[in-house]
Amino acid sequence: MKKIRIGLAGLGVVGKGVYDILKKDAKILSLKSQAELEIVAASARSKKDFLDPKIKFYSNAIDLANDPEIDVVVEVMGGTSLAKDLLENSIRNGKKFVTANKALLAEHGAEIAKLVEKYDGHIGFEASTAGANPIIKSYKESFTSSEILEIYAILNGTCNFILTKMSDEGSDFAETLKEAQKLGYAEADPELDIKGIDAAHKLTILAAIAGSTNPNFKKFYVEGIDKISASDVRLADELGYKIKLLAIYKNRGDRVEQAVYPALVKKSEKISQVDGPFNAILTLTSNASWSMMIGRGAGSLTTGSAIVSDLVDIANNRKTYLFGVKADELKNAKISDISQRVGKYFIKLKVDKILAQKTNLAEAIFGTKIKIEKAFFLDEGEEILCGFLTEEHCEEDVVKTLQNLDSNLVKFSKFLRVEETKF
Amino acid sequence: MKKIRIGLAGLGVVGKGVYDILKKDAKILSLKSQAELEIVAASARSKKDFLDPKIKFYSNAIDLANDPEIDVVVEVMGGTSLAKDLLENSIRNGKKFVTANKALLAEHGAEIAKLVEKYDGHIGFEASTAGANPIIKSYKESFTSSEILEIYAILNGTCNFILTKMSDEGSDFAETLKEAQKLGYAEADPELDIKGIDAAHKLTILAAIAGSTNPNFKKFYVEGIDKISASDVRLADELGYKIKLLAIYKNRGDRVEQAVYPALVKKSEKISQVDGPFNAILTLTSNASWSMMIGRGAGSLTTGSAIVSDLVDIANNRKTYLFGVKADELKNAKISDISQRVGKYFIKLKVDKILAQKTNLAEAIFGTKIKIEKAFFLDEGEEILCGFLTEEHCEEDVVKTLQNLDSNLVKFSKFLRVEETKF
Repeated sequence: MKKIRIGLAGLGVVGKGVYDILKKDAKILSLKSQAELEIVAASARSKKDFLDPKIKFYSNAIDLANDPEIDVVVEVMGGTSLAKDLLENSIRNGKKFVTANKALLAEHGAEIAKLVEKYDGHIGFEASTAGANPIIKSYKESFTSSEILEIYAILNGTCNFILTKMSDEGSDFAETLKEAQKLGYAEADPELDIKGIDAAHKLTILAAIAGSTNPNFKKFYVEGIDKISASDVRLADELGYKIKLLAIYKNRGDRVEQAVYPALVKKSEKISQVDGPFNAILTLTSNASWSMMIGRGAGSLTTGSAIVSDLVDIANNRKTYLFGVKADELKNAKISDISQRVGKYFIKLKVDKILAQKTNLAEAIFGTKIKIEKAFFLDEGEEILCGFLTEEHCEEDVVKTLQNLDSNLVKFSKFLRVEETKF
Repeated sequence: MKKIRIGLAGLGVVGKGVYDILKKDAKILSLKSQAELEIVAASARSKKDFLDPKIKFYSNAIDLANDPEIDVVVEVMGGTSLAKDLLENSIRNGKKFVTANKALLAEHGAEIAKLVEKYDGHIGFEASTAGANPIIKSYKESFTSSEILEIYAILNGTCNFILTKMSDEGSDFAETLKEAQKLGYAEADPELDIKGIDAAHKLTILAAIAGSTNPNFKKFYVEGIDKISASDVRLADELGYKIKLLAIYKNRGDRVEQAVYPALVKKSEKISQVDGPFNAILTLTSNASWSMMIGRGAGSLTTGSAIVSDLVDIANNRKTYLFGVKADELKNAKISDISQRVGKYFIKLKVDKILAQKTNLAEAIFGTKIKIEKAFFLDEGEEILCGFLTEEHCEEDVVKTLQNLDSNLVKFSKFLRVEETKF
């Protein structure tokens, strides 16, 4: 049997997962893979005990790219600086490359797509997005016969875990984050997750494949869950909704709506029922209507298995252009500004109780500018906490209205977006 | 651009779907496909108006296999006789083959796997199973790095539509079937669907890929939904369950549990919430835990798009062995008899009201042989309709107990299986 010699860059949680699977599942893999998959070298900041001493160890990852005895470099270090050097050197040296690095592909994907074609290389990145869900392969190889019209996705397990816990226990964001960290569901430095950056990296990749466009990270609106409070969750619940951090893509023909934000989703919709550390991707395509994948978003063996399935693809000579089409066919998407979003909104206000009682509250607050579909009120002593669900409006009108509220009556205001997936 | 010349066998609903997609989506396809996909010939019992007159028409499908100007034959006729001849002749003549025919692959898959390897051919069959869900590619190419341990799947949209309607409306099987036929959700001859045969064909294919085994249709237990009554659905509902036609596969190491039957599933489990004409596949794998796909199970463009994605795979030179591994590596699964199933059961009885009131009912009926977890009773005049939910028992013990019930007390008995998916 042919052999594929692997250089493993990164020996953290995912690296260990790849290592473990290649060892414990060698028998299954020898059935499915037309070449034997063997780790011959590894690199990390420090050598790890679990590593077989027969495996070469480099303290500099770049050495893997230059080792002529390596066929495929697997990059699970993270970061975009050293990882980018490693990718470029590996591809230039004729090696294939497998990575879990969403940031790298989201931020430098256009350039990488050109490089990999120039050297007739191949990069597998199933592990970069949505963990156990084979969404990269499905988008690149199965959803080829339809236009991808809309995507609603839960792509960050940490945020989904925190929001689920806040909803189940009525707890506030800060304490829930601490608990998630204790349980290993959130990093010590949680910024990338809770600010929505991680989900935005993954959405960038999905949107590039969906629209055959260059990855456009930093060009769209991203809002995290760090400002979500227990009372947001409570009011949403009373109105029949859950709050989920959604990655959203809508192909509107001449433009694209693309964003990451915490959104209210009706409890009856399937995506709002995806709880805890699970990821989900709901896709509307032109020929096959709605379809959804749900699966674990992370974990040593989960992400490791996505890496290994990419290695099997390499062993079996299956490949596709980086974002599904030739690099020079990738267009630049026109992403509309979030202020132009048309949809429903959840508006939370604190209102002076005495003034509020004199009048029709919604009308007193919004006049005729914003139409209210549903409301829920919580008595908080001198103030009333109000949750309003609006009809469809343009976001800039909502923002303008909230900026010009009567400050005697309204002491505090914020809004969140409402998404309706029809699934 | 290279051209792939297609011969389309079958101009029914799916054939029309393939034809329509290749025409209306030519622009998207030219991006995703490295060869132009062109229908150059078609066959059917009679010529159809929608067909471009420039396309050659054969009234005998086998002529497509012998036409040297055809590269790929797409078979969407159904049936296993002519379709098998067409497949064999096409492969022998060096043509690639794409089919939606689950019966053909389930009943003759072992032989076909050998043939296709002998001629270095390729058969795409994404459209055979679960419509819009790219489950064939995912099982063959993405779930390669894990063992597939369990499958719970809704694979027949007709049955799921009927069961959903019965549950929503409290209607009986016969009238619901008629309505489904009127709405186009059930065939004029619905036997294949409602008897579970169609789901069994599809499960045969999934199980073959999951276990790297020869397809084993006719070797496992299959029960349809035609005996499900309104009162079964009602009692299940009162006990907290829905009834779903499930295709089930459980890899137990030395043996396999494989079957199709209507099962009670807790309302809180995700698969019980998949309603109407949707299909779903819930998979437990050794490295990635639970994952699920949900999507439309059928339809002209839905099934058509699965066919076309297989054509794009051919254009892009992506291929995999028929059932994921070499034909001569396929083992024969040891499927355990349904009588050996261990699990929970739903038992429905009609009990004489006067006799029933004298005593502890469950104990009077079952003695100590069957342990009851939950019960619900409906007063029906002289009789009581009872729904019992048992603890875990071996099926042969349940059957034996039901055969030996006191016929003065119990006027009627039946049972259904309960499945717990932990997802």
